[in-house]
Amino acid sequence: MSLGTVAIIGLGLQGGSIGLAVQEFLPGTRTTGYDLDPATRTRAAERGLVHQVCGTAAEAVSQADLVIFCVPPGVMGEAAAEVRGAIPSGALVSDVGSCKQSIAAALREALPDHTVIPAHPVAGTENSGPDAGFAHLFRNRWCIVTPPEQTDLVKLSELVAFWEALGANVEIMDARHHDLVLAVTSHLPHLIAYTIVGTASDLEDVTQSEVIKYSAGGFRDFTRIAASDPTMWRDVFLTNRDAVLTMLQRFTEDLTALQRAIRVGDSDTLFDHFARTRAIRRSIIEEGQDDSRPDFGRTDHENGGARG
Amino acid sequence: MSLGTVAIIGLGLQGGSIGLAVQEFLPGTRTTGYDLDPATRTRAAERGLVHQVCGTAAEAVSQADLVIFCVPPGVMGEAAAEVRGAIPSGALVSDVGSCKQSIAAALREALPDHTVIPAHPVAGTENSGPDAGFAHLFRNRWCIVTPPEQTDLVKLSELVAFWEALGANVEIMDARHHDLVLAVTSHLPHLIAYTIVGTASDLEDVTQSEVIKYSAGGFRDFTRIAASDPTMWRDVFLTNRDAVLTMLQRFTEDLTALQRAIRVGDSDTLFDHFARTRAIRRSIIEEGQDDSRPDFGRTDHENGGARG
Ligand SMILES: NC(=O)c1ccc[n+]([C@@H]2O[C@H](COP(=O)([O-])OP(=O)(O)OC[C@H]3O[C@@H](n4cnc5c(N)ncnc54)[C@H](OP(=O)(O)O)[C@@H]3O)[C@@H](O)[C@H]2O)c1
Ligand SMILES: NC(=O)c1ccc[n+]([C@@H]2O[C@H](COP(=O)([O-])OP(=O)(O)OC[C@H]3O[C@@H](n4cnc5c(N)ncnc54)[C@H](OP(=O)(O)O)[C@@H]3O)[C@@H](O)[C@H]2O)c1
Repeated sequence: MSLGTVAIIGLGLQGGSIGLAVQEFLPGTRTTGYDLDPATRTRAAERGLVHQVCGTAAEAVSQADLVIFCVPPGVMGEAAAEVRGAIPSGALVSDVGSCKQSIAAALREALPDHTVIPAHPVAGTENSGPDAGFAHLFRNRWCIVTPPEQTDLVKLSELVAFWEALGANVEIMDARHHDLVLAVTSHLPHLIAYTIVGTASDLEDVTQSEVIKYSAGGFRDFTRIAASDPTMWRDVFLTNRDAVLTMLQRFTEDLTALQRAIRVGDSDTLFDHFARTRAIRRSIIEEGQDDSRPDFGRTDHENGGARG
Repeated sequence: MSLGTVAIIGLGLQGGSIGLAVQEFLPGTRTTGYDLDPATRTRAAERGLVHQVCGTAAEAVSQADLVIFCVPPGVMGEAAAEVRGAIPSGALVSDVGSCKQSIAAALREALPDHTVIPAHPVAGTENSGPDAGFAHLFRNRWCIVTPPEQTDLVKLSELVAFWEALGANVEIMDARHHDLVLAVTSHLPHLIAYTIVGTASDLEDVTQSEVIKYSAGGFRDFTRIAASDPTMWRDVFLTNRDAVLTMLQRFTEDLTALQRAIRVGDSDTLFDHFARTRAIRRSIIEEGQDDSRPDFGRTDHENGGARG
């Protein structure tokens, strides 16, 4: 792998993690970066997220072999259009956006003369901004690369090697299928978590303080992903609308069936459904995609709450 | 506090944790225990969950000052009826069941001559059985005690002191209100988690292996609580039916509103909803009810998956 310079546009959780990971795992590669927010640029420089934080996006991309857009899904096209004239003609363009069909279209429209190969590292936390990134975010996680049908295979293999160097396992997938898969493994879970946390905050007969106190009964698990960045998630639902609505329809049908089983006291249906769902967690743990310790390995009840 | 002997009926996650916690935090108190399952009794004796594992429930309770039923919600009454003649007349009877109105009624019907003060420690993990318990389960967690209107105040204060000794914060609450609060902080989250994990396992266009691989996008959070014991959860939904259906109705209304916002592209509604739900997580962490570290402090992507 011989990427001389990687330019990162957007220095939040994803951009910052890529910058730190390149410095740790690809020490021969130079990193430049830009963020729209001056405060983020300052903080990025303090944390050393990239070798050089630039004052403009054009400056950041000017020497790049690979440009990665790490901005919210809704502004990918805009961010790309801004640097159209500044990206070297042979440079590869990619991104980390959570939806692939609409972002691929926006990037190609903004940069018609460049090779664009979108990607999506399935790795994140509930935090965002320049303090959220860390070099090991992508280790043992999947990165889905969604090349167009006709693509530059040398550049594709460079991008695959790049993500593998950062610790990720790479999978090549059609953008349309990506959007369907992520609708169920990521977008629908976020929508449901946002919904239930909203529902619980709005009750008249149960106070917010009761919801907080007794959240260890299960509710607190949902509050983590419902604390994710609102801009990003608004954009995700708007840019992957059809797949999300399809999956939501399935979910609603299944919920209605369980609701009916509760209402009529159909204990067999409930038991059978609840007995079926254990296996999938076992597989997730076996494949290293979750912590095997009970309760995700939380230690908050050991030490009086790791208050932070 | 001067409880000479505590008898524990059911030696799974809850019963085992109480047994271990008493031995650690109340060294002057003797513990006896019984479980219906002979294999569980053997394992309980091996792990030393209580000082003495008995061959019958009657033997376990025969010297008890406090009897705690730690069996699934649906068999509380049955388990209590079995030891009616064997419990000393002055002994206090309690339980740890997740629903309080129906269990209180079942225990009182089975043991009309005893003081029954139900309780519910809001503490657990996704694991069950005799290997799941640990002494620190209740530390920094709330235990809700739901005494009947007329109760023996000396015994009530003994039960409160018992749970405080085990590390819990105690709250006194009306059983009806308990069932409503827990419907939203525990029962509805479990129902939704069970539903989405079922939905994701049943799709034609996304394979189970894809769901597992890309679960780090959010889905894996739901699989933890959907791996909980099916018997217990079937019983919870059947014994707290009305409150669960009420909360489910609210949730469905809110989900329908967000679905509509996605469908019509109402970005302001989405953003406003998603921006509102962050505060509640902050409060949960401030009150020590969750781990403050990103991603619950999971380390599975650090070390290649804490495979277990
Ligand atoms: N979070 C996750 O778990 C996750 C996982 C996989 C993929 N992704 C994808 O990664 C991308 C970035 O997400 P993130 O979590 O890293 O978000 P983030 O922490 O909020 O970082 C995004 C950064 O981009 C900046 N920005 C916005 N518009 C810009 C522009 N036109 N030019 C330059 N910078 C701009 C933002 O600045 P302001 O603060 O001024 O807006 C912010 O600092 C999104 O497309 C998301 O779908 C996220
Ligand atoms: N899990 C949680 O997170 C949690 C939290 C708070 C409260 N609770 C409540 O705690 C109670 C126990 O739950 P758990 O998680 O400890 O479940 P568990 O680990 O499955 O333990 C329950 C034990 O009771 C045994 N049992 C069943 N019927 C019995 C009987 N008639 N006499 C004696 N033993 C019997 C079971 O044996 P078999 O294996 O043979 O059935 C099992 O070993 C439930 O009422 C639940 O609502 C649970």
